[in-house]
Amino acid sequence: MNFSSKLIEEAVNAFASLPGIGRKSALRLVLHLMQQDQDFTETFTEALRNMRKHIKDCKVCHNLSDNEVCNICLDPRRDEKVICVVENIRDIMAIEDTGQYRGRYHVLGGVINPIEGIGPGDLHIDTLIRRVSQNDVKEIIMAISPTIEGDTTIFYLSKQLKETSAKISTIARGVSFGGELEYADELTLGRSIVARTPYRNASE
Amino acid sequence: MNFSSKLIEEAVNAFASLPGIGRKSALRLVLHLMQQDQDFTETFTEALRNMRKHIKDCKVCHNLSDNEVCNICLDPRRDEKVICVVENIRDIMAIEDTGQYRGRYHVLGGVINPIEGIGPGDLHIDTLIRRVSQNDVKEIIMAISPTIEGDTTIFYLSKQLKETSAKISTIARGVSFGGELEYADELTLGRSIVARTPYRNASE
Repeated sequence: MNFSSKLIEEAVNAFASLPGIGRKSALRLVLHLMQQDQDFTETFTEALRNMRKHIKDCKVCHNLSDNEVCNICLDPRRDEKVICVVENIRDIMAIEDTGQYRGRYHVLGGVINPIEGIGPGDLHIDTLIRRVSQNDVKEIIMAISPTIEGDTTIFYLSKQLKETSAKISTIARGVSFGGELEYADELTLGRSIVARTPYRNASE
Repeated sequence: MNFSSKLIEEAVNAFASLPGIGRKSALRLVLHLMQQDQDFTETFTEALRNMRKHIKDCKVCHNLSDNEVCNICLDPRRDEKVICVVENIRDIMAIEDTGQYRGRYHVLGGVINPIEGIGPGDLHIDTLIRRVSQNDVKEIIMAISPTIEGDTTIFYLSKQLKETSAKISTIARGVSFGGELEYADELTLGRSIVARTPYRNASE
């Protein structure tokens, strides 16, 4: 790409440094900014700078938060005796969107992955164990991806939490709702047979 | 999408206000910014603000430029007697990338489009006519999209430029190189037969 302007080139490079944005899309975005008022660019960049500068790590659950403690941890209607352990804040948003959960969260910040050099010390495990003991937590739900790394992490956490009185559960795994059996992968289908649940008629 | 943080929500809305970026992609970009140093966000936003604030409209050809007059207009090696008329600066970049053109440009800023309310007065036509008369331009190449609006614009410009001594040409239209005839659309194929060119052997 031939740029006659250094300023345009730098703006294109800035957009192209973000994941999933190539140089052609970046140029399209830059030209879009040029078509809008200067205020548009100011508002856009201010929102990002403001977010990056002022956002905090919730000191209870490590969710991203506007304050020292996040809204979910501050909400008195949410059960503090139940903690859902997730990898990152996107998982919190996905679970919140279901509207099915009224407990608290704990963000690990990843999963144990020796290949990428992520050990238990790199995750927020210490604070989880402290929370569980101090607040007399009754249940810990592991909402962690069903991968080898995820399962390793659940195994490690369950060992660490053995001393506490909390019950540990994992989110249900099996065939998706609305999915056709013939398209389910073998591992999922196999496990869903092994982990079958008693049938309960809705009218019972 | 449920956001526990107002700052995150505003940053996601900022990204999602750009064309072609949905809310899920916007969230991914915001979380990417969170994973990088604060400097990354500062550099990113600074490049955009700087570009939007300091970029100028080249007063000769209306290309986007770092200075009053753009690099192409300032380049003495480029033939100022040949002007290529384009719709926008993306077209300049596309033509520059071919490396086949050594004249100057003139950016119209669009094409005549009565449906969208764009008339000749909204385009940089006055400055084009002034340039052509003042600089004794020999040739004007219309590199404008072969659409009804584009053809209307070329027709209008040719009328306006009749008084000048400049020769007017349009970029060649026909089947694409490497394209198969059977897949060419009827209009293109039909016109490419009408506008056939004498065969010249490369060894002649």
